[in-house]
Amino acid sequence: MKSLADSASLGERVAAGDTRAVARAISKVEDGSKDAAQLIKDLFPLTGRGLVIGITGAPGAGKSTLVDKLALHYRGREERVGIVAVDPSSPFSGGAILGDRIRMQALGLDRGVFIRSMATRGNMGGLARATVDAVSILDAAGYAKLIVETVGVGQDEVEIVKAADVCVVVLVPGMGDDIQAIKAGIMEIGDIFVINKADREGVYATEKELEALLSLSSRENGWEPPIIKTIATESKGIVEFAAAVQAYRDFHFQTDLGSQRRRAIARWRILELLREKLVSQTLASDSASERLDRLAGEVATRQRDPYSAVEELISQKSVVSGQ
Amino acid sequence: MKSLADSASLGERVAAGDTRAVARAISKVEDGSKDAAQLIKDLFPLTGRGLVIGITGAPGAGKSTLVDKLALHYRGREERVGIVAVDPSSPFSGGAILGDRIRMQALGLDRGVFIRSMATRGNMGGLARATVDAVSILDAAGYAKLIVETVGVGQDEVEIVKAADVCVVVLVPGMGDDIQAIKAGIMEIGDIFVINKADREGVYATEKELEALLSLSSRENGWEPPIIKTIATESKGIVEFAAAVQAYRDFHFQTDLGSQRRRAIARWRILELLREKLVSQTLASDSASERLDRLAGEVATRQRDPYSAVEELISQKSVVSGQ
Repeated sequence: MKSLADSASLGERVAAGDTRAVARAISKVEDGSKDAAQLIKDLFPLTGRGLVIGITGAPGAGKSTLVDKLALHYRGREERVGIVAVDPSSPFSGGAILGDRIRMQALGLDRGVFIRSMATRGNMGGLARATVDAVSILDAAGYAKLIVETVGVGQDEVEIVKAADVCVVVLVPGMGDDIQAIKAGIMEIGDIFVINKADREGVYATEKELEALLSLSSRENGWEPPIIKTIATESKGIVEFAAAVQAYRDFHFQTDLGSQRRRAIARWRILELLREKLVSQTLASDSASERLDRLAGEVATRQRDPYSAVEELISQKSVVSGQ
Repeated sequence: MKSLADSASLGERVAAGDTRAVARAISKVEDGSKDAAQLIKDLFPLTGRGLVIGITGAPGAGKSTLVDKLALHYRGREERVGIVAVDPSSPFSGGAILGDRIRMQALGLDRGVFIRSMATRGNMGGLARATVDAVSILDAAGYAKLIVETVGVGQDEVEIVKAADVCVVVLVPGMGDDIQAIKAGIMEIGDIFVINKADREGVYATEKELEALLSLSSRENGWEPPIIKTIATESKGIVEFAAAVQAYRDFHFQTDLGSQRRRAIARWRILELLREKLVSQTLASDSASERLDRLAGEVATRQRDPYSAVEELISQKSVVSGQ
């Protein structure tokens, strides 16, 4: 009962915008702690008010600086900004926490900005689920703009950005061969494209190439993704960038695109959580985790194949649980 | 019964090294087809013979060229090479297939090289599982060197490379700020580091920086990851790269590191498969998928939170299945 009461009061403090409570609540969903479920249940009715802006792109594109400058722009308009940075670095390297501190300094310890990095969580999964839960917490706490930034081009990272109301893809001029592959992968998700470091050589070529790629992809909803050029380090193009975000938001809410998208996001979110929950249920008992260890040993030495191992884990579970 | 017989004969043809059968078998595991499980069960005892080399790194690092040149090196020694490239591009863009064709041409339609791209599979997951299954198929088909190449720095991509016997991290000189974050994320998994495009400016600085990072990370197993400099486009450093791979392989099999690692990989592989299987079981019936649609609608309009939605899906499942 204690943990339930704790969680309720934590929820109330989050709803009141208490930043320490927000930080603690995010830690709970990140750790997959038991009261995280109750917390999100309590807070969920308060969500859906903030605008979720997802920003992704290749490494080295200057996404963090762009995000910081966009946040400063919103702060200039007295809007509170929550930033969730998905960081592929290991929890052991301490990169995420260090990164937060450096960025907090850049934003001048502004109490209207909340920055949190989410590190990958090892092979039990749950990064995407933890990230969207963190956004829900910030949303419930009354942050008006919720920026989710993902480094990299991985599958999970793309999914996380797709769960935003507006998806922004950041490119830089002339980044080599693989950029073509990245573009192909994230072309469909971009509502807005930003070419950052637009003072670099090759910006015209990148823009033309991008226009050509965009003209090939058909958008059933009628939105034509704009291409915004920025030099984030010099705060250039940020006003235009923010205007494009607003334009998309207005478009999004005028059409029924908004509700379709929210439905697709909800579906994805349920599936992510379902996956995590089913696995943790199956492996909850001591005997199940011993069985997993034994099966891993057998698969490693080729005495058994992974498919049979999974069948054994699942069949044993239904015998044991019976609830 | 027919599909079982088909799968058995397909397995036999894979085991005999028939490339068309290999291609069909990989399609089956990629699609998550029903006979995929039986196929891997049949082939699994034949696996564990080839050396699995995982190669990852930032986009633009020239991984594909490096992989192609390494494959050519092995071909020069009459070894058959299977390449599985994990491609983050959308299945709709056709990028993966086009990429295969271009690379096949570069490798001169050599019948001793099999190249296959695995595209991301949408929000049902399973990319990592499909990739390791594809490697098992190539292994069973007698390819001596199995190269798994992932573009990007995402969580899934890192996991896939960790499932290799040897993990290679490819860097290039001076790639901007985010590279630091990437390095932090993949530092722990690299058994060998390659600085490609080593004729570029900044190679010395990158090497020193990498050495400094490596000296910080302790390796309990006593292996000191070498740093190899290559210019893949000019085939420079490839012999040294292959020698480093061989040296790690020898080290790996001398110590009990090999068996520990295979056990960790087996455990991860079981978990990936378990996750996929549990979700597909839960959503197998028409009524479950209708329920998911309804719940997604309710979560989208905030009538319900995702945690309660998942609880409903799981509780309904245990009522229905009862097997």
